[in-house]
Amino acid sequence: MHEDVGRLLISCPDRPGIVATVSNFLFDHGANIIHSDQHSTEQGGGTFFMRTEFRYRDLATAGKLLEQEFKAIGGRFGMQWRMSYAAHRKRLAIFVSRAEHALLELLWQGRAGDLAADIVLVVSNHTNNRELVERQGIPFFHVPMSAATKAAAEAEEHRILAEHQVETVVLARYMQVLSADFLTQYPANIINIHHGFLPAFVGANPYQAAYERGVKLIGATAHYVTEDLDAGPIIEQDVMRIDHRHSTEDLRRLGRYIERVVLARAVGWHAEDRVLLHGNKTIIFSG
Amino acid sequence: MHEDVGRLLISCPDRPGIVATVSNFLFDHGANIIHSDQHSTEQGGGTFFMRTEFRYRDLATAGKLLEQEFKAIGGRFGMQWRMSYAAHRKRLAIFVSRAEHALLELLWQGRAGDLAADIVLVVSNHTNNRELVERQGIPFFHVPMSAATKAAAEAEEHRILAEHQVETVVLARYMQVLSADFLTQYPANIINIHHGFLPAFVGANPYQAAYERGVKLIGATAHYVTEDLDAGPIIEQDVMRIDHRHSTEDLRRLGRYIERVVLARAVGWHAEDRVLLHGNKTIIFSG
Amino acid sequence: MHEDVGRLLISCPDRPGIVATVSNFLFDHGANIIHSDQHSTEQGGGTFFMRTEFRYRDLATAGKLLEQEFKAIGGRFGMQWRMSYAAHRKRLAIFVSRAEHALLELLWQGRAGDLAADIVLVVSNHTNNRELVERQGIPFFHVPMSAATKAAAEAEEHRILAEHQVETVVLARYMQVLSADFLTQYPANIINIHHGFLPAFVGANPYQAAYERGVKLIGATAHYVTEDLDAGPIIEQDVMRIDHRHSTEDLRRLGRYIERVVLARAVGWHAEDRVLLHGNKTIIFSG
Amino acid sequence: MHEDVGRLLISCPDRPGIVATVSNFLFDHGANIIHSDQHSTEQGGGTFFMRTEFRYRDLATAGKLLEQEFKAIGGRFGMQWRMSYAAHRKRLAIFVSRAEHALLELLWQGRAGDLAADIVLVVSNHTNNRELVERQGIPFFHVPMSAATKAAAEAEEHRILAEHQVETVVLARYMQVLSADFLTQYPANIINIHHGFLPAFVGANPYQAAYERGVKLIGATAHYVTEDLDAGPIIEQDVMRIDHRHSTEDLRRLGRYIERVVLARAVGWHAEDRVLLHGNKTIIFSG
Repeated sequence: MHEDVGRLLISCPDRPGIVATVSNFLFDHGANIIHSDQHSTEQGGGTFFMRTEFRYRDLATAGKLLEQEFKAIGGRFGMQWRMSYAAHRKRLAIFVSRAEHALLELLWQGRAGDLAADIVLVVSNHTNNRELVERQGIPFFHVPMSAATKAAAEAEEHRILAEHQVETVVLARYMQVLSADFLTQYPANIINIHHGFLPAFVGANPYQAAYERGVKLIGATAHYVTEDLDAGPIIEQDVMRIDHRHSTEDLRRLGRYIERVVLARAVGWHAEDRVLLHGNKTIIFSG
Repeated sequence: MHEDVGRLLISCPDRPGIVATVSNFLFDHGANIIHSDQHSTEQGGGTFFMRTEFRYRDLATAGKLLEQEFKAIGGRFGMQWRMSYAAHRKRLAIFVSRAEHALLELLWQGRAGDLAADIVLVVSNHTNNRELVERQGIPFFHVPMSAATKAAAEAEEHRILAEHQVETVVLARYMQVLSADFLTQYPANIINIHHGFLPAFVGANPYQAAYERGVKLIGATAHYVTEDLDAGPIIEQDVMRIDHRHSTEDLRRLGRYIERVVLARAVGWHAEDRVLLHGNKTIIFSG
Repeated sequence: MHEDVGRLLISCPDRPGIVATVSNFLFDHGANIIHSDQHSTEQGGGTFFMRTEFRYRDLATAGKLLEQEFKAIGGRFGMQWRMSYAAHRKRLAIFVSRAEHALLELLWQGRAGDLAADIVLVVSNHTNNRELVERQGIPFFHVPMSAATKAAAEAEEHRILAEHQVETVVLARYMQVLSADFLTQYPANIINIHHGFLPAFVGANPYQAAYERGVKLIGATAHYVTEDLDAGPIIEQDVMRIDHRHSTEDLRRLGRYIERVVLARAVGWHAEDRVLLHGNKTIIFSG
Repeated sequence: MHEDVGRLLISCPDRPGIVATVSNFLFDHGANIIHSDQHSTEQGGGTFFMRTEFRYRDLATAGKLLEQEFKAIGGRFGMQWRMSYAAHRKRLAIFVSRAEHALLELLWQGRAGDLAADIVLVVSNHTNNRELVERQGIPFFHVPMSAATKAAAEAEEHRILAEHQVETVVLARYMQVLSADFLTQYPANIINIHHGFLPAFVGANPYQAAYERGVKLIGATAHYVTEDLDAGPIIEQDVMRIDHRHSTEDLRRLGRYIERVVLARAVGWHAEDRVLLHGNKTIIFSG
């Protein structure tokens, strides 16, 4: 991560000349392209997606000017676009209930320098993970949650997030459904790990359901949270093989391992602006 | 595959002494155990499953006597059991529609000696695969199928199967739903390949559904056919990674590869009596 | 595959402005970029690689002119570059010995339309695969090979390849070592499948060696053939899990499945000009 | 893990009647078999391996008597055998240098109850992991190591292990070669994680070597340590896909993830007596 690496993310109706125009713009301004990925949907209308990583001197100060000048191109091609700066690490909050594995994986990756974002706080409706979090010097907020107190508790959560300028919320096995109201505050910035291979096993107890159906692989799915339960855009999925010897409890234990990995990959890609939305689907420029 | 390899398959309520009794029986009769696998369900009542492979001299002639003598043990433990003989290769019929990939894989495995069963005939509601099949010296039966002719066509299929003493039917992308009546003729002996990761994407057009949901892995599922569409006991599943660059057509093309492999594995295990049923689930002794 | 899809493949010393220059060139000539992949090595000197797929009207006639005009850019940046045309399908020859599985997979993929190249002939030092090949309407040449006749046999092979304008040779389990002289005729255009996970198990009998070492995964490796045995640039590898129950013979049988898949993927990428060489390594733009 | 679960591990020359004799013995003594796995080598002489898990009342007190009585059977069949008791959890020491990832995974699995053994101490030639270890209430011993002090340092390590009754040593990225003398103290009880897919990339810097060879998958190997560097019996291996975009540093980072998983699986199997030795190979009864 260099101080002066920028990322330009674009989606727009596909038409000739976009790559040429964007790469010219960057070249003319002295920016040097490190990587560039493009994708055009060929089904359903032709949308063009692009993620370009470039080096630029003094991006911290000159970035705003570069953005200003790019506006004309954005307008000309009807782009949705944004620039981001590697030096500005996204500020993450982790929401967790009792299970510690997904939280722990993210904390490790943070500590090991493998996550290009900062975990600035953890919120939980339980207290058992407090010590684990505080030990790493990260603030821990206990926000109990019940049907009666839900609105107030979410308001409290929102206050905490705002105070700490959190940009992305990671639900690392947070066993509460967030209200539509809460979700709208963080569009495409709330990532959940579901402990099943979506769209199979939506809802509660996916391991029990997988056990009962007799599947031969179990999986986990990281997705952006939307109002429809477990139906938001999928960022990443993975599976592992099981067999008849495994009990539901075994599936839970083994599944933790897949959950950790899938969530960490998804959060990592999100942190590096590698995920673009296309309707209810994702484009992942994981290169 | 030796002429004189036998397999003893058992399921019964679990209780002490089963392994000792069965292994004594085999030892006392001069049978030598090659492999033996057991499984006890620990959830839901305790059922014991066992598959034992043994060598026995003159099994072709002496096998019936051995079975006769085992009856007392079977009765004592309340066993569902059967003996089978490696020398008696199961007689398979393949049902196929237009797609050739799953059929081809099975034909090749048959030819290469990798499949411990005989493909004795192929039935299709189309004719495009005739040459492929007949070239390998296997009889091909064209049985057209329409809503109006379904009952008569199934009767014809049944007649063909009976005439050729078929024991197992493999639906290698056969795009017709078999009637309940037909199914009851071959209990736990009709294997289907579904081109989706069940229980996700039940029914028609699973690749289209997978594309629309934006999953990151596609899969295929081999299962025994029951009256409930795509809900029978799963024998094998596998997946492969896809990404946003793949169209529905790509998924169909790539998926053929997983379908072939998953079906061939399932048929291979079935051929070697490695699949035991437990309610709507399977125990696979794949060792 | 559209008639008028072109591919531009570039490698050159990395420096600012390459992407802008190339995409401008294509835009100015009315070519529309479909996909574009780039890669810059960050270790060891900074080489830039690019593969751009574009649509162009009348490429068959206008392509040569486009190439002519690109020369100035190629010269300016010190590029190694080439254009290729999807409408010009590469002409492949398959060399095979007795084993049929890798050959069969390629023939199927060709027939199924999954391979963007034409298999124009098969050469073998045995005759057992003749029928299989000729049945598909592909010429089969039996070229026996012994230490004494090697030079003459290779000359005969070379004559056959030249006569049929073969561009790429695929060694689909061809159990002969090609002479250095032969290799120089087809630089970076001879692909071999090695039945081991290189660089482990170089040379003969890799399954026996894998069995003896007690590895838990076996693999296969597709690579370009160079004078150093099994040491050429790796195009693709894959593995499968094995365990203590598998004999060497089982490894051979199971391994065929991985060999087929790995070779088919490698040949597919080569056919679509997705493989770029970087010293003894490959850049795969598999997107 | 029930207090009264026993495991009987056997290897001996294969001959008829072993399974019957052993299962009778257990039945006659009132032991109830939970699982039983067998394996016979068919190549190279016919060795029989068996692992039987059984329930037995008062195993803690009655186990020694059971062992005493089994001796006659062991003698009759020329068995190498041992009984172990799930209630007696193996005592592990972890040796580690600077890298923390493999250590962390084991500590977490211990804490989560996923490891059927006790981590009783950690030894390191560095101090950076001290806090991590002590925080979890596990003693940490700093034993610096240099060419000059090696013999004394190993003596010190040996003293620590003896004092804490350590049975198994896990080298979780311990960057020192243990002397032959040290190894003989813990036959088949020292497990190492090698950060390469053995037998490829023996020795130092396997990621650098993998990068230079241009492999498409990297792997890790857990094995018992013997005097021959990286040549001991392999317990587990796994791989992950990489591509041309990954630097050596990326391989190191990604590889940590495979190393953690492979080592944890191997240690878990060892802890539950699922690993049997057969010459320089392992039989894994992972069921």
